[in-house]
Amino acid sequence: MPKVALVMGSKSDLPVLEGFFKVCKEFNVEYEARVLSAHRTPVEAAEFAQGAKSRGVEVICAAAGKAAHLAGAMAANTTLPVIGIPVKSSTLDGLDALLSTVQMPSGMPVATVAINGADNAALLAVQILAIKYPELADKLTAYRRAMTEKVLAADEELNKEIEK
Amino acid sequence: MPKVALVMGSKSDLPVLEGFFKVCKEFNVEYEARVLSAHRTPVEAAEFAQGAKSRGVEVICAAAGKAAHLAGAMAANTTLPVIGIPVKSSTLDGLDALLSTVQMPSGMPVATVAINGADNAALLAVQILAIKYPELADKLTAYRRAMTEKVLAADEELNKEIEK
Amino acid sequence: MPKVALVMGSKSDLPVLEGFFKVCKEFNVEYEARVLSAHRTPVEAAEFAQGAKSRGVEVICAAAGKAAHLAGAMAANTTLPVIGIPVKSSTLDGLDALLSTVQMPSGMPVATVAINGADNAALLAVQILAIKYPELADKLTAYRRAMTEKVLAADEELNKEIEK
Amino acid sequence: MPKVALVMGSKSDLPVLEGFFKVCKEFNVEYEARVLSAHRTPVEAAEFAQGAKSRGVEVICAAAGKAAHLAGAMAANTTLPVIGIPVKSSTLDGLDALLSTVQMPSGMPVATVAINGADNAALLAVQILAIKYPELADKLTAYRRAMTEKVLAADEELNKEIEK
Amino acid sequence: MPKVALVMGSKSDLPVLEGFFKVCKEFNVEYEARVLSAHRTPVEAAEFAQGAKSRGVEVICAAAGKAAHLAGAMAANTTLPVIGIPVKSSTLDGLDALLSTVQMPSGMPVATVAINGADNAALLAVQILAIKYPELADKLTAYRRAMTEKVLAADEELNKEIEK
Amino acid sequence: MPKVALVMGSKSDLPVLEGFFKVCKEFNVEYEARVLSAHRTPVEAAEFAQGAKSRGVEVICAAAGKAAHLAGAMAANTTLPVIGIPVKSSTLDGLDALLSTVQMPSGMPVATVAINGADNAALLAVQILAIKYPELADKLTAYRRAMTEKVLAADEELNKEIEK
Amino acid sequence: MPKVALVMGSKSDLPVLEGFFKVCKEFNVEYEARVLSAHRTPVEAAEFAQGAKSRGVEVICAAAGKAAHLAGAMAANTTLPVIGIPVKSSTLDGLDALLSTVQMPSGMPVATVAINGADNAALLAVQILAIKYPELADKLTAYRRAMTEKVLAADEELNKEIEK
Amino acid sequence: MPKVALVMGSKSDLPVLEGFFKVCKEFNVEYEARVLSAHRTPVEAAEFAQGAKSRGVEVICAAAGKAAHLAGAMAANTTLPVIGIPVKSSTLDGLDALLSTVQMPSGMPVATVAINGADNAALLAVQILAIKYPELADKLTAYRRAMTEKVLAADEELNKEIEK
Repeated sequence: MPKVALVMGSKSDLPVLEGFFKVCKEFNVEYEARVLSAHRTPVEAAEFAQGAKSRGVEVICAAAGKAAHLAGAMAANTTLPVIGIPVKSSTLDGLDALLSTVQMPSGMPVATVAINGADNAALLAVQILAIKYPELADKLTAYRRAMTEKVLAADEELNKEIEK
Repeated sequence: MPKVALVMGSKSDLPVLEGFFKVCKEFNVEYEARVLSAHRTPVEAAEFAQGAKSRGVEVICAAAGKAAHLAGAMAANTTLPVIGIPVKSSTLDGLDALLSTVQMPSGMPVATVAINGADNAALLAVQILAIKYPELADKLTAYRRAMTEKVLAADEELNKEIEK
Repeated sequence: MPKVALVMGSKSDLPVLEGFFKVCKEFNVEYEARVLSAHRTPVEAAEFAQGAKSRGVEVICAAAGKAAHLAGAMAANTTLPVIGIPVKSSTLDGLDALLSTVQMPSGMPVATVAINGADNAALLAVQILAIKYPELADKLTAYRRAMTEKVLAADEELNKEIEK
Repeated sequence: MPKVALVMGSKSDLPVLEGFFKVCKEFNVEYEARVLSAHRTPVEAAEFAQGAKSRGVEVICAAAGKAAHLAGAMAANTTLPVIGIPVKSSTLDGLDALLSTVQMPSGMPVATVAINGADNAALLAVQILAIKYPELADKLTAYRRAMTEKVLAADEELNKEIEK
Repeated sequence: MPKVALVMGSKSDLPVLEGFFKVCKEFNVEYEARVLSAHRTPVEAAEFAQGAKSRGVEVICAAAGKAAHLAGAMAANTTLPVIGIPVKSSTLDGLDALLSTVQMPSGMPVATVAINGADNAALLAVQILAIKYPELADKLTAYRRAMTEKVLAADEELNKEIEK
Repeated sequence: MPKVALVMGSKSDLPVLEGFFKVCKEFNVEYEARVLSAHRTPVEAAEFAQGAKSRGVEVICAAAGKAAHLAGAMAANTTLPVIGIPVKSSTLDGLDALLSTVQMPSGMPVATVAINGADNAALLAVQILAIKYPELADKLTAYRRAMTEKVLAADEELNKEIEK
Repeated sequence: MPKVALVMGSKSDLPVLEGFFKVCKEFNVEYEARVLSAHRTPVEAAEFAQGAKSRGVEVICAAAGKAAHLAGAMAANTTLPVIGIPVKSSTLDGLDALLSTVQMPSGMPVATVAINGADNAALLAVQILAIKYPELADKLTAYRRAMTEKVLAADEELNKEIEK
Repeated sequence: MPKVALVMGSKSDLPVLEGFFKVCKEFNVEYEARVLSAHRTPVEAAEFAQGAKSRGVEVICAAAGKAAHLAGAMAANTTLPVIGIPVKSSTLDGLDALLSTVQMPSGMPVATVAINGADNAALLAVQILAIKYPELADKLTAYRRAMTEKVLAADEELNKEIEK
């Protein structure tokens, strides 16, 4: 069974990350979630990344705000794909976290999603896993179809409202 | 043999994308490269993404500048993981391409790398493929070690220069 | 009778788009409104744009937030003029949607209005239609006069308040 | 015969505006071009906009840099559709001109194209005129097809280069 | 008696401009206040600026948001000094108004104060008038002294609070 | 005879400030120019501002880059009107200097002109002086007329070029 | 006993600065706190900085918003290390204060911490003092350990919540 | 004898860092310089920071571009004061490096200087060391005086040039 890890820089980020858990459950992807800080627990963070592969983790998601170094710290300690979720904090509207996460130097990519995009991080993880686990590819196709249908239903609804 | 696709919005982006080809060759990952535009060839772009999986492509990289919709257009037409490379153009220093690529709506992630980060896009593709192809994981470990050694060599070199 | 289409990326954008409907009604311009997503319903979005002209649509307005590709996706599939309304979302204050909408590549313009400027999108559509339908030009002149008078009335009101 | 006007804030903007003339000639759209400044020749600028319609102008394009008020000054003095071209100057990379042009207040739209997007301004003008002049619609379709073919040719070219 | 004019683009800006009136009253500077729009009442706005000097106005303050052209429109129609107050609106945090006001082209300065800085606009007007009206210079000196004393009092207060 | 002072943070800013001297000479306004730094010569800078009025200076212009405090330091030490010229340096395109100059706190205005806008600073100074010295008002009117004529000449020139 | 000074531009900044006092008390570092303005009390501010060293102050922290010149004014008047705290105000999300504080010219550094980062300013002061006062170094090590443990406890807590 | 360390993320940053070495030599402060990467040599970087104090280092300077995590990685592994030098790279004009360096989370300050401000980083290090080593304080005073005199000389020079 595929396994995704979610690391967050602070437990206070949890509400923003809800979408991650929802998507993992929906796709029946096992996950582990950790509070680890690139700065406050550098040793534990490095050890976590270094040991992730041998624990069966195949994709790591990392969520952090401000000078968001957590995804980069993960990337530096594993060759697993690392997905970065920039978290908006009280100033600068998430731009600091976005640039700190995405502008990684040559040789050390972080797959960055939108600011506060926890659900997309999980979906990206599923897409990555799906190249190895075909059943996930099928589920993704169904998930997409459901999304499409939801938009089409909203479209129909809108037309009814307008006609009235 | 794993296969990565690189789609670019304009052939003039080619010089910026050199690093992509270099990394693919280094990891012996087969690639296909296409010039396709989300706006000028929307049908071909959509067909390309829709058919990618059946042609053996496992990861799609998309490079575009300005209002960079190419990666998003790929993502909309496949469930394969899509990596976005924002390309800096003559105004706004790449910020437009970065935001157009990374700020994708819920349900439709694009794994965004740094502005002009073509080598990192290829490396991220290799990291993704490595969860399925173990030999790539080994190569990544070696690649990382080489990077580390290169930094350490530069470090030594610097110390010699300073001592003089 | 002239016809304008409004496409929105999500039904949740509806409150921001109120001004569009108000202006269309005021000018007695027929409209159709659709929920269509460049990413979640790419086929339907493309088909909508491709078929718009034959359904009598003469101008398309497209409203979307974040990496706002909807207007661009419309433009790619029609030669009708496309007006883009960047919608402010929860991060970056609408800058992402603005740049994703306005910075279109050569050959594929999107007529972009202000962030959340739905009323201006409708007015621009009316101005465009007015070059073909002279009665709209007359109405625009009257609309402008009313705007002018409203400002002059506010001016008078202010002076009364200050004099007191 | 349809007529488009191009107003520029300074004759030094001419090199950036080349694409405008090229597109107009390609579509055989008559144009007039003027150097007029919202600030240095406010009377002439206002008179130009006020008289444009009666001179047969159907769309006005306005190009200006920095605190780019020219498009807005046009819009304030005509009900014709006004297209704004933000011009990049020596500081702030065109962001000042973009925001000054696009963020127009309610009731007074300016159809803004990309920074330095003179060709797109002309194309947008042609798209607008095409709703009245069907022959332009046909030309637009052909123009689009040529653009598509150019991308496909570049695509083929790229594949040949890669195969070598 | 010296006279300052305050022009605002919309009566809804009034709450932000309170500081202007307070300072004028404090310095006993006569003022007139007008609602005038560079776009909705271009004729009246131009006439206002053109006639200001002959009505005894010596400094014009202009407050506007978004693509804030009002101060520029004043400047274009008078040689009196024009002070621009960029007003923050619902998007972009006032950056659009600031750049639209301050980045004026060569030959046409607008004396720009901070975003929402209505009190500073009035104070700047008083400073300007004071080079002609010496009694204002004396009042400014007293005003400054009072400001200084207010800070020193706050300083003393703070120290008492901390000691406790 | 009216007198304007120009203070620059570094002698290396001189080339950017050329326009200031040109305008002063054109209007026959006496000027003094100083190299003074808010940080490196705080005492001299403060003394300069404090003594300016008694030396006959009526307006102070201050040009500085990066964290541009010079205009603010002038303002803090005089009640004369202070005009700030944000100077573009090697990073951030002048945005740092602009915000450091214009965003002054309540009670302490700096009349800010465009980034590198030295000529406009001088013109603003002349406009300010003109409320006291009527001959300057006449010269300003002539200067404006010359500017207008220059634009009209460029306009005519353009039309000749296009006709050919 | 080591002593740190905190200078704030306005007493209204006090709530943002709470963290400073908390950290100082925790490390038993003596502090003095002052309300001083670079603009409203330039003389007192300069005197404060000039006299700080002789009063036993070893590090100065300065907090200010908008065009935040206070830290720079401190730096200009002492050779003690100066720590700048950019304070977020009602517009521009603290970017103005950040750039005004950090972009200091050559020769005049300000050690800038994050926007509203008052606790970090105090911690940085303690780190600086610790190179002279070894007991502070020990406390810092303990403080760090406590931070680490707090994160690890949050991590454990999270795992319990998830398991449930 | 006091010792400062300079860590750079890449040897290619060396030209930007020249000012660091110049200042250290001028103040006769011993330094060590290292090429170490937070991502490519995370183990060596952490070990460097952990061992710095015992090797006699008292202040660490860290220079890096883009998603500049190096200073943060230093800070996470030592309680010595860490000074961050954001380095401008080929996109975004240094804003990414600035935000990644300065926006550190609570508990983990980095004393950030201006973009490319290597000389100021060294001077800040000297100011920090001077609270322990009084001879450095004397040198700083002399250094400041020399800076002041240099400005005053430039001022005199300017006046001579203008008089001619």
